[in-house]
Amino acid sequence: MAECPETRARAGLLHTPHGTIETPVFMPVGTQATVKGLTQRDLANDLNVQILLGNTYHLYLRPGHELIRQMGGLHRFMSWPNAILTDSGGFQVFSLSGLRKISESGVVFQSHLDGSRHSFTPESTVDIQLALGSDILMVLDECPEYPVRHEYARESMQRTVRWARQANSHFQNRMAESPTAHALFPIVQGSMFPDLRRECAAALVDLDAAGYAVGGLSVGEPRPLSLEAVEATADILPRAKPRYAMGVGMPAELPEYVARGIDMMDCVLPSRNARNGYLFTSEGRVIIKHARYRDDPGPLDPNCQCYTCRNYSRAYLRHLFQSGEILYAVLATRHNICRYLDIMRDIRHAIISSSFPEYLRCVRASFANAG
Amino acid sequence: MAECPETRARAGLLHTPHGTIETPVFMPVGTQATVKGLTQRDLANDLNVQILLGNTYHLYLRPGHELIRQMGGLHRFMSWPNAILTDSGGFQVFSLSGLRKISESGVVFQSHLDGSRHSFTPESTVDIQLALGSDILMVLDECPEYPVRHEYARESMQRTVRWARQANSHFQNRMAESPTAHALFPIVQGSMFPDLRRECAAALVDLDAAGYAVGGLSVGEPRPLSLEAVEATADILPRAKPRYAMGVGMPAELPEYVARGIDMMDCVLPSRNARNGYLFTSEGRVIIKHARYRDDPGPLDPNCQCYTCRNYSRAYLRHLFQSGEILYAVLATRHNICRYLDIMRDIRHAIISSSFPEYLRCVRASFANAG
Repeated sequence: MAECPETRARAGLLHTPHGTIETPVFMPVGTQATVKGLTQRDLANDLNVQILLGNTYHLYLRPGHELIRQMGGLHRFMSWPNAILTDSGGFQVFSLSGLRKISESGVVFQSHLDGSRHSFTPESTVDIQLALGSDILMVLDECPEYPVRHEYARESMQRTVRWARQANSHFQNRMAESPTAHALFPIVQGSMFPDLRRECAAALVDLDAAGYAVGGLSVGEPRPLSLEAVEATADILPRAKPRYAMGVGMPAELPEYVARGIDMMDCVLPSRNARNGYLFTSEGRVIIKHARYRDDPGPLDPNCQCYTCRNYSRAYLRHLFQSGEILYAVLATRHNICRYLDIMRDIRHAIISSSFPEYLRCVRASFANAG
Repeated sequence: MAECPETRARAGLLHTPHGTIETPVFMPVGTQATVKGLTQRDLANDLNVQILLGNTYHLYLRPGHELIRQMGGLHRFMSWPNAILTDSGGFQVFSLSGLRKISESGVVFQSHLDGSRHSFTPESTVDIQLALGSDILMVLDECPEYPVRHEYARESMQRTVRWARQANSHFQNRMAESPTAHALFPIVQGSMFPDLRRECAAALVDLDAAGYAVGGLSVGEPRPLSLEAVEATADILPRAKPRYAMGVGMPAELPEYVARGIDMMDCVLPSRNARNGYLFTSEGRVIIKHARYRDDPGPLDPNCQCYTCRNYSRAYLRHLFQSGEILYAVLATRHNICRYLDIMRDIRHAIISSSFPEYLRCVRASFANAG
């Protein structure tokens, strides 16, 4: 593992049954067994994506984890050759479901699709993720809204720790008879309270898990607080294990998380923003509907080697966006995901070549200028 | 040129400034400078598409032919290396526009986008298509609804012939000073009246055009009448010139048109039906939402070599369709277009290997069985 002594940044390798992943890594989000607008070939061959994120909540509801198990698991079902990490569904239950009721045993919720009633327990979400065949599973956690009172955040965090213990115990039992290898990551919660974050991390370290996630980010909190929440547990989580910051972040934030010891990130921003016409380039953002791009013959990002930038102009992308064409989403998503992956490769390279502090200064300066 | 003596089927080559096309050929429809859901790389490299159709009406309204000219023409604007045929916009004016008023000089119409008023003349539609840089242009024609009285059909057909003469004369003048080569096809009209079709074709032959289109099909008439309309002029149109049946047809109809002397066809069916969940396979149609495909691990079409069939199951495609995922449209369109191209390749091969009559009998028998 290459480390940056001035920060907590490190570059390493994460081994999974579906390939070895170079970290730090960004994981594109494949919510419903697809990264919206991209084929698996685009992802694996063109973009060299090593690991995808799948959403347990969505796949559980549709097409159902039992169907996916029957079809040979999620890798085979979606024809994805590389690694898959799944969340536990907790975040979606807390953000998408109408009715939801938390108890010590788990959470009862209504499907956002048809209002039907379901429940997740620490054990059942492990079982669902094993039915999916994920390489890396997440424990069921409660993800409180922001802001939340310290008292509730503590109560919730303590329940998340108890659930993590139950999930881990169930996972160990399942692994004892499993022919395939999997990893389960517990999730640090505690809202934006550093003391709760530290208490949570300390408790989870006892599980000696294969890796640790930092959850409860991107729930509406000011950006600096997300970074502080990650920083709070940086000295507590075991150095030898990968650390995953869930649901972050904007391009300028990626090296900030890495500088705080994060090895893995996922975010819907590159794909969702792409579809909404908001494109990330090495020269700043491009809002493609703007009239200035109407007759712009240049590539979206002159420094990008993605299929979109090598073949199409801003004028053409704007036309496709204005016309509501599917190809717009296809090309825009491909670029935005490529941009994120390029940033992660630059970060990794900077760490390995001992120039990460300088890289970080440049990024901060350029984003400060870009506004 | 290889010919089938028992039918009018023939296999040849059509030379354009953007490549030589093997005929008979099916042209995917790229209405708004994109075949919905496919990249230009998918089309040119994976599917080996030699010629695309673009819609003048749509491109004229958005992004505008002047912008496309400024961007270097439609090939460059959409990054398409092979040939492009454009229609004249007449069909869309008559089918999409709200208000429209036909006079001897042309047609005044309202945009379906914003209600703004525009006019097309025989000369202006040539100019617009030259601004787009099409390899093959169509003359402005009137495409009457079905059914229509013989008297109106005759009046309309005669106007279409006058417009074709005007368009051709204008086109010849423009070509005298053009650094690039283009071809203009007149369009045979006459509704479903064989006498009018013959009268129209005879008049258009005098223009000695590079090729001839048969229009006014797929306007709601019973299927056998479309074939009769094509047949009516088969002996009148010059044998040495390519013949293009506009806007047809279903898979089983493709060899029927070829058997009647047609060399070129275009149709939105493979792409539109794909998006609507209606898939064409070598074993018949697949309506992908049907519950029977829920856990079907097999490929959409076991005899198809397209990317979709080589990599994904019916169960996965059904899941994507039910979930409203973009990837569904991407994969389904790729397959349906591939199916049409495969049929055309089979037809061409059958003609060249002198087995077209047998091929046609097999197709008729299999579609009769499939219902």
